[in-house]
Amino acid sequence: MRIAELSRRTGVPVPTIKFYLREGLLPAGELTSPNQARYGDVHLHRLRLVRALVEVGGLSIAAVRDVLGALDDPDKSLHKAMGTAEAAVMAADATSDDEVARAQAREFAERQGWRCHPESDAFQSLVAVLATAREVGLDSFPGQLDGYAHAALGLARQDLAYALTAPTKDAAMEIVVVGSVLGDKALAAVRRLARRELSQRLDRGERSGQETDPDC
Amino acid sequence: MRIAELSRRTGVPVPTIKFYLREGLLPAGELTSPNQARYGDVHLHRLRLVRALVEVGGLSIAAVRDVLGALDDPDKSLHKAMGTAEAAVMAADATSDDEVARAQAREFAERQGWRCHPESDAFQSLVAVLATAREVGLDSFPGQLDGYAHAALGLARQDLAYALTAPTKDAAMEIVVVGSVLGDKALAAVRRLARRELSQRLDRGERSGQETDPDC
Repeated sequence: MRIAELSRRTGVPVPTIKFYLREGLLPAGELTSPNQARYGDVHLHRLRLVRALVEVGGLSIAAVRDVLGALDDPDKSLHKAMGTAEAAVMAADATSDDEVARAQAREFAERQGWRCHPESDAFQSLVAVLATAREVGLDSFPGQLDGYAHAALGLARQDLAYALTAPTKDAAMEIVVVGSVLGDKALAAVRRLARRELSQRLDRGERSGQETDPDC
Repeated sequence: MRIAELSRRTGVPVPTIKFYLREGLLPAGELTSPNQARYGDVHLHRLRLVRALVEVGGLSIAAVRDVLGALDDPDKSLHKAMGTAEAAVMAADATSDDEVARAQAREFAERQGWRCHPESDAFQSLVAVLATAREVGLDSFPGQLDGYAHAALGLARQDLAYALTAPTKDAAMEIVVVGSVLGDKALAAVRRLARRELSQRLDRGERSGQETDPDC
């Protein structure tokens, strides 16, 4: 396909595609004349991935280059490349040097039998959350994490199964990145809807005989 | 207790407590002399809640006043007050007028048998997430939501049970607010840890015989 069709099928404007080509984020097309090139499915998948990394993941061009480098490295498994992408997208937004919170996070991971290195960004985020809970005196909060782990493992299984339905490595990576960023937001929204629904059911039980409240 | 002890037990500085008293966010103490007052457990719980709303929830003083008003209104159930608090803390950070995404969100809620009013902030967030997924061409994303709903209901049950362990309405609200904000962050972190753990197990399966990778 021509660059115009590549643009139409991905929604990425032609000047942006040319910029990605110059930056090496997209491999050159096959030249069919000195100033025309042809692009294939490889370009389509890669362009969708780049778009997801930039627009949904909010990555810089340099970070996108790192992620693509990991993906194209034959010594790295898809799992490793996914880890690079997730780390880039989900850089720790907060850290804490609260040693009690760190110990709580470590005990939690050990209780689950999770052996991941405790210096990952996700682990740091968890330490920061536990430190905030401690600061505001919600000492019982760490006890909630085991239930979160149970739910999270179910979701992780679903996430991986979903990524593995993708036809190519690029497409799998796109699902991981988009699913990771959008998935967190979707889960927060769905969790709130679920809580309102459940809470409303209890409320109806408390005050049975009343009309259902359309505002919940 | 004196104001100094109230400060010590909550970590809120005395001048801040005085500010909350002037703003009516904290009821006046019992005067024991013209310029000394005594405070009790009611003040302790209320001050912890105000602190959680301001410091964790990021609410303005006016918004805190609304939440406390709902909590203290005898015509409102605890459920209603929780709804006010959640709405204040979780104001929709994004909206979208994508009608296809709105229809997807509505179909999802109907599939679950959730009857909450579709104009809630949580519903709007979900529409915005689905609109982004559509924009980047991840058309299969809405299919992931049913699994999210299953996990979210389990978590909602846990959240409510946790809030109901609180000794007072104020303490229950504090758990709802802190749990809602910190819970989202903790869940995002735990979900990532779970995904890495699961993904690493698969990776070990793929390349059995190799050493476990300490960095996951």
